[in-house]
Amino acid sequence: MTSSHIARCAQLAMVLEVSATPKPGNIDRDHNYMDTRFEHFLASAVGVFPILEKAARSGSGVGSLIREAVLESSKWQKGGNTHFGAFILLIPLVMAAGRCDDIACLKVQVQKIVRGTTVDDAVEFYRAFSEAGVKVKPVKDLDLTDAASTDNIRAQGLTLFNMMEISSGYDMIAEEWTNGFQKTFDYATSIRSKLEKHGINDAVVLTFMELLSKNKDTFIQTKFDDVKAEDVSIRAENILKKGGMDDKIDDIRSFDDELIKEGVNPGSTADLIISGLFVSLYGGMRF
Amino acid sequence: MTSSHIARCAQLAMVLEVSATPKPGNIDRDHNYMDTRFEHFLASAVGVFPILEKAARSGSGVGSLIREAVLESSKWQKGGNTHFGAFILLIPLVMAAGRCDDIACLKVQVQKIVRGTTVDDAVEFYRAFSEAGVKVKPVKDLDLTDAASTDNIRAQGLTLFNMMEISSGYDMIAEEWTNGFQKTFDYATSIRSKLEKHGINDAVVLTFMELLSKNKDTFIQTKFDDVKAEDVSIRAENILKKGGMDDKIDDIRSFDDELIKEGVNPGSTADLIISGLFVSLYGGMRF
Repeated sequence: MTSSHIARCAQLAMVLEVSATPKPGNIDRDHNYMDTRFEHFLASAVGVFPILEKAARSGSGVGSLIREAVLESSKWQKGGNTHFGAFILLIPLVMAAGRCDDIACLKVQVQKIVRGTTVDDAVEFYRAFSEAGVKVKPVKDLDLTDAASTDNIRAQGLTLFNMMEISSGYDMIAEEWTNGFQKTFDYATSIRSKLEKHGINDAVVLTFMELLSKNKDTFIQTKFDDVKAEDVSIRAENILKKGGMDDKIDDIRSFDDELIKEGVNPGSTADLIISGLFVSLYGGMRF
Repeated sequence: MTSSHIARCAQLAMVLEVSATPKPGNIDRDHNYMDTRFEHFLASAVGVFPILEKAARSGSGVGSLIREAVLESSKWQKGGNTHFGAFILLIPLVMAAGRCDDIACLKVQVQKIVRGTTVDDAVEFYRAFSEAGVKVKPVKDLDLTDAASTDNIRAQGLTLFNMMEISSGYDMIAEEWTNGFQKTFDYATSIRSKLEKHGINDAVVLTFMELLSKNKDTFIQTKFDDVKAEDVSIRAENILKKGGMDDKIDDIRSFDDELIKEGVNPGSTADLIISGLFVSLYGGMRF
């Protein structure tokens, strides 16, 4: 598979994720926030192509590739940080895809790539983090808004994988890095299994709901608290228990309206849907 | 400007056009047809990147590039023909963009490119045309569903520009080729002028309505007749005369519902919006 093909799978994953509606609490084709809109996500996904294509040809440099992706995204739109979490997952996956022809190989290679990250990767990641103006703090006891962080990272000899290990207990994106991208591969299968019956939009929406029901979203935990995140997951679980698809979709829509009103956006769940979509498309999913 | 940057401007133009809503009669983020859906247009726009990038590096081969774009688009989605008309406009514009740094240069170069097309370009275009399964017949008295067409084109020594000259009197896409892409450049300016006040979605919708009000859509003329196309243009004109933006949008929404119900889709107008968006983005428009 060419690096260009792999990069387009990643672009399309980002475009399909943000388009899927109703996706409770998040920006989608029918919902915008005040300063960040649907179109900002589209422009970011399109704009970042050359960094994805470069990643598919790269054997190292995870941290600087994430940083380059964040910078390129911001050149194409004025909506601020759109895909930071997604890039943390996509960059190693895209790099692994460049070495593989199938999903079995991808599972092995992506682990090699994240475990092979260096202190330089951690420093570049820190830079990307502050440049993107991300609110979530990914590493406990390490203030990433502080200019001294780079020195701390170097002094402690922390690789990017080490940083993810520290936060993996409470951050679902970091957990993907340390557990072999398990949810990414599981939910890729889930999307694909729902495609024929439900079509691409509803396959993504239902998988998003499944993921949300089974995992407290990190973004909600950070912005609100653990109780709020758990409450959202329980609500999602109860909706999925409903019988018919029409009933489910009506309830998902009301749930969406409510979360949007409260400013509760399960952003980390959306990031995982992007990585799952990428794996599905890389594996040959068409619709 | 790099060929990759130019290709991404074209991708984003296609993605923004199909997303803009309500866009009377056409597929948009809130409207699908039975067999062709919003997501098919997104996948086509993303998938066609390498052909656009190649076009930005190419000095000739308009016909085969259009054909390659149609073939690549169909590999990424199962919704059939999504962007044939758009490619007829985008390919020469993207090729011209590869030789330029600004819109003034683009205006000159795109004319050189279309006027320099050959008989081979016409033959390749004919092949793309039958492969895409397009319903609109672009050249009078030349049955493009007939396998003998290639021989006819060669026997008559028709270049692709000649073919467009023949149909320019009744086909707004062909007319762009023969009159220096006048509407493309005019409506690029229109989109950009509306951006600050209305945002990207409504800037596209209002420009689409302006274009529709002033020009009978070729796709409607072919699928229905001239009277229907004129009726649609008059309706669009009357809506634009309304005072406030809210009133306009309500009326555009009702107009949209009605056209969708009747199966009246102004597809050629959408193609011109894509070429206009491309020029705006190439000229540096960000949002």
